[in-house]
Amino acid sequence: MTYQTQLSLPPFSRGFHLITSHIQQAIRDWPMEEPGLLQVFIQHTSASLTINENADPTVRMDFESHFNQSVPENAPYYRHTLEGSDDMPAHIKASTLGSSVTVPVNQGQLLLGTWQGIYLCEHRNHGGHRSVIITYLH
Amino acid sequence: MTYQTQLSLPPFSRGFHLITSHIQQAIRDWPMEEPGLLQVFIQHTSASLTINENADPTVRMDFESHFNQSVPENAPYYRHTLEGSDDMPAHIKASTLGSSVTVPVNQGQLLLGTWQGIYLCEHRNHGGHRSVIITYLH
Amino acid sequence: MTYQTQLSLPPFSRGFHLITSHIQQAIRDWPMEEPGLLQVFIQHTSASLTINENADPTVRMDFESHFNQSVPENAPYYRHTLEGSDDMPAHIKASTLGSSVTVPVNQGQLLLGTWQGIYLCEHRNHGGHRSVIITYLH
Repeated sequence: MTYQTQLSLPPFSRGFHLITSHIQQAIRDWPMEEPGLLQVFIQHTSASLTINENADPTVRMDFESHFNQSVPENAPYYRHTLEGSDDMPAHIKASTLGSSVTVPVNQGQLLLGTWQGIYLCEHRNHGGHRSVIITYLH
Repeated sequence: MTYQTQLSLPPFSRGFHLITSHIQQAIRDWPMEEPGLLQVFIQHTSASLTINENADPTVRMDFESHFNQSVPENAPYYRHTLEGSDDMPAHIKASTLGSSVTVPVNQGQLLLGTWQGIYLCEHRNHGGHRSVIITYLH
Repeated sequence: MTYQTQLSLPPFSRGFHLITSHIQQAIRDWPMEEPGLLQVFIQHTSASLTINENADPTVRMDFESHFNQSVPENAPYYRHTLEGSDDMPAHIKASTLGSSVTVPVNQGQLLLGTWQGIYLCEHRNHGGHRSVIITYLH
């Protein structure tokens, strides 16, 4: 039996944001006792998902600083510039971090490590609502 | 029931290429009505797969420019140089982008967002045919 | 039928290490004749998993050199610095490379390409034991 749902996340500001509780809320009624895998997939190309430290907000700030440094806006070699200076870097950051995360599940729990949380990585200045598809396979 | 097949992609030039239609063609006879996950896995270490913008070719050109800038050829600290100046950067780019993409499926459709396509990222100058394994689990 | 187990890896030095044989040893008793997917998930935020070249050790050395260059320690914009100069770069490297790898399986074999191996990417100076969850779905 496979479970699947679509979740529309609220708009987040540009940066890295913990969304573990949003995911857990969306799947709270699913019987996930059996070992399996839970995938979260983002249906966009200028935002991404990753798993990282869930405690200190400065980690998420440093992610934003690092990726702004390593994927600069207005690089002289960009040709895709019509949608704003934050657009092409957003595409590159999205592929660097990835469009999905997959977490093992057992006994009703996501088997995240103690310090792991799921991040929404919002790479646009005004990304708006983001749609994710959540799938549980066992 | 799990479906799995091997697909040999035609040689692509160095750069980023949309292969969504190649994947869809390879799985056209699979009954994918049930919700599930489709994984595409590349069996190489100097090419990779990612999901990004499917409309404007300059996005793919800018990906190539960015990764050539951020993973330079002939970096002074490379020791693995025997296979050509494009080889070690190809390995690093491949791991940065990843060896697989996994897309949720339902009602016979890949649940890609409107602007999402699957890219083959060919990091070698002459990569030749690339083999991918496609697996549908539900 | 889903199989799942937890594996505690021995401590590795900072750098990139082949762990394919550790994974294969942990799952040696699983009947994996059916086509499916094997996921390996690391429960940490300062180490990661990737798939790359399994033959020449200088490839793994060059990975370490590259990521030390592209994600420097002591960047002036880091705010999360209390846990040591290797900590924040470790988080960024972990998300760049990813917290899991998923490999197609058939007829009892991981369908890795000839030159592919699974890497543990240890980004801390003294990471200690690392816990991974291995899941086989078919």
